Amino acid sequence: MIRLSTADPGFEAGFAALLAQARETTARVDAAVAAIIAEVRARGDAALVEYTARFDRWRPADAAALRVTEEEIEAALRGVPAGLRAALDLAARRIEAFHRAQMPRDLEMRDEAGLCLGLRWTPLDAVGLYVPGGKAAYPSSVLMNAIPARVAGVSRLAMCVPAPDGALNPLVLAAARRAGVSEIWRLGGAQAVAAMAWGTESLAPVDRIVGPGNVYVAEAKRQVFGRVGIDSIAGPSEVVILADAANDPRHVALDLLAQAEHDEAAQSILVADDAAFADAVVAAVEAELATLPRAAIAAESWRRHGAVILVRDWAEAAPLVDRLAPEHLQLMLAEPRAALAGIRHAGAAFLGRFCPEALGDYVAGPNHVLPTGRTARFASGLSVFDFLKRTTWIEADQAGLAAIGPAAVALAEAEGLDAHARSVAVRLAGRGA
Amino acid sequence: MIRLSTADPGFEAGFAALLAQARETTARVDAAVAAIIAEVRARGDAALVEYTARFDRWRPADAAALRVTEEEIEAALRGVPAGLRAALDLAARRIEAFHRAQMPRDLEMRDEAGLCLGLRWTPLDAVGLYVPGGKAAYPSSVLMNAIPARVAGVSRLAMCVPAPDGALNPLVLAAARRAGVSEIWRLGGAQAVAAMAWGTESLAPVDRIVGPGNVYVAEAKRQVFGRVGIDSIAGPSEVVILADAANDPRHVALDLLAQAEHDEAAQSILVADDAAFADAVVAAVEAELATLPRAAIAAESWRRHGAVILVRDWAEAAPLVDRLAPEHLQLMLAEPRAALAGIRHAGAAFLGRFCPEALGDYVAGPNHVLPTGRTARFASGLSVFDFLKRTTWIEADQAGLAAIGPAAVALAEAEGLDAHARSVAVRLAGRGA
Repeated sequence: MIRLSTADPGFEAGFAALLAQARETTARVDAAVAAIIAEVRARGDAALVEYTARFDRWRPADAAALRVTEEEIEAALRGVPAGLRAALDLAARRIEAFHRAQMPRDLEMRDEAGLCLGLRWTPLDAVGLYVPGGKAAYPSSVLMNAIPARVAGVSRLAMCVPAPDGALNPLVLAAARRAGVSEIWRLGGAQAVAAMAWGTESLAPVDRIVGPGNVYVAEAKRQVFGRVGIDSIAGPSEVVILADAANDPRHVALDLLAQAEHDEAAQSILVADDAAFADAVVAAVEAELATLPRAAIAAESWRRHGAVILVRDWAEAAPLVDRLAPEHLQLMLAEPRAALAGIRHAGAAFLGRFCPEALGDYVAGPNHVLPTGRTARFASGLSVFDFLKRTTWIEADQAGLAAIGPAAVALAEAEGLDAHARSVAVRLAGRGA
Repeated sequence: MIRLSTADPGFEAGFAALLAQARETTARVDAAVAAIIAEVRARGDAALVEYTARFDRWRPADAAALRVTEEEIEAALRGVPAGLRAALDLAARRIEAFHRAQMPRDLEMRDEAGLCLGLRWTPLDAVGLYVPGGKAAYPSSVLMNAIPARVAGVSRLAMCVPAPDGALNPLVLAAARRAGVSEIWRLGGAQAVAAMAWGTESLAPVDRIVGPGNVYVAEAKRQVFGRVGIDSIAGPSEVVILADAANDPRHVALDLLAQAEHDEAAQSILVADDAAFADAVVAAVEAELATLPRAAIAAESWRRHGAVILVRDWAEAAPLVDRLAPEHLQLMLAEPRAALAGIRHAGAAFLGRFCPEALGDYVAGPNHVLPTGRTARFASGLSVFDFLKRTTWIEADQAGLAAIGPAAVALAEAEGLDAHARSVAVRLAGRGA
């Protein structure tokens, strides 16, 4: 954990170093992933069976065995305690409501030249959801990825989740069922991404692949980009918390640790305007670590990537936040809305002293799939927009063409595109005919 | 050019072959591009000067010489004839108006649990526009890329355009000025993309790079994706025209050729319900080719990739169009709106007999940067959405937390994320304190 203070002359260098800190594993897996994709394209189902045996340590009898059956889903559902099922349902309903409110409207306008111009939103036909398995098999992630697709109107949702040693998390299956997933495949890694992008005998290709994954999954998404759409490539998670001294230090400490417990590469940053309060938070972090089940991971994250930044006043904080462009931003201040208005770049913001980021991870409604690693400068969290595309349209009659066509002819001729020019000119000339 | 008829028993095989036809150059430039990016990252300006000397055949004195000066832009403007300047201005005004109409509204909702949820749109800070040089130096492309960024509120627009042998197209400079580009760099290829993504001593990095380019540019965009945002990677252009026998065959022929003249890899497809009409269009294509300046390119495109598909009725056409998911779709039918309603996938549609695609290329208002190569299944044309990102936000007080917090605790515990659970539980427990 590093401590910086804007009052310190070395602040800018220290902050720049914090920004430049690479938290991602830099393993080069390009070639390995390219080989897996080529194999899946060439050999289809057979390659999926072999990779699953090699990487997930169980051998499917055939590709059909990769698909989770209705019976398995029903059995999983029966095993989920009623309280948890109710929690999943509350989360699903709230996520649905927030994403439904995002749905954009079509546009249609008639202009002074007499043309009609429009923009129409339509859903994708088929989407692939990647859900990490193993240590990060999160039912909440299934809800967050699948529900926006359903709300957007996507009719086919294929989900791939690795099943290390053949085992799946029943709650993941329950979440998939609740979210309206169409197909569940016990399949992970680059081979799952390749199968969803290119299709195999058993698994029909999709149009877009979303969902977080490990470095192989991220590289595979990068390599199939263009063939299919992908979402932003997720890196390690991060939170920046702006907290004044009116907060309970333990609350802030737990929010920092909630981020840190995800992953050793996660990053938790506290921005405070009171040194004694910051010290109290740091002490509370240590105290909580003593009893936290995932203390080893959280402590490592906090030690390697944690930071406490002391500002002289809150006006100093906004430009620092914009440079960090954090995935998660907690504003535990007296006037959190005013603070948010002064900040340009953040994936998701949590306003007030009683709005821990964990609330948004599960049940608040906005998506928890968010841009990481400073990409909130240009990227956004998952939403219905990831599952919709636009068709613009133009409707012109002879009068409309006559009004603006000559300018098109002039520009086409200037660009040396004569067929373009002629295609307009011939219709202008035809007016009198 | 191939001819298919849905009445033919071999239709499905022929159509599938048309869909599978690879029109892109398959040159592997991954390694060459990776080397260029690495050099630009390591050596900055010096690498830009060297690559420009090597690839564009002129040697800048230094990196400053890569930047187009105010004087050069003014001189270029003076050289543009008034008629062309008026045409550019008409185009710019119409593009602005259509993109302004797209601007989305922020969302704010209070729900029954007492939480406030919101979604806020903000512009990117800095955007890089790539504009191809050489044979495809198109001022219209500058307008189409730059204006949506400006409308979205992007404050810095850096444009890179290669200047083969040092020469720039004055109309490109005029368009850049009209569109509000902040900086123009005489720089092309993968080195331009690398410079915009990573920055050099002279060229500050941007947050997103848009604009079409050759195979090196496309691969460079793919490689810098994640560091910055990119738009869809453009392939060769295509048009599908649905035309009934009430059309003038010459109009249709010129629209097919307007697409074909772009590039030997472009594709023009006519879908007709009348064989004699289709024959007349094919004859008109040959007749126009006799006098078209770019006949060599257009003829090669038409010969290699052109297609005429005969349908028995228009209901047969919609599913074929959806499988083609064309970049451009002309609906030269009696009821074009009804036809569009039955089609799911197209980048842009042109409705009516007097709405040639060339109108949309220049002056209609919707963007001409569109998804190619069947990517309209999941991708959209350029718009203000490419230059905006979303921050979602959640505001909760104690009552709101109490209403939904227990479900978050249950889910966090089920996922084994105890700090998440505690961060909510500690605030629930504190209610009575």
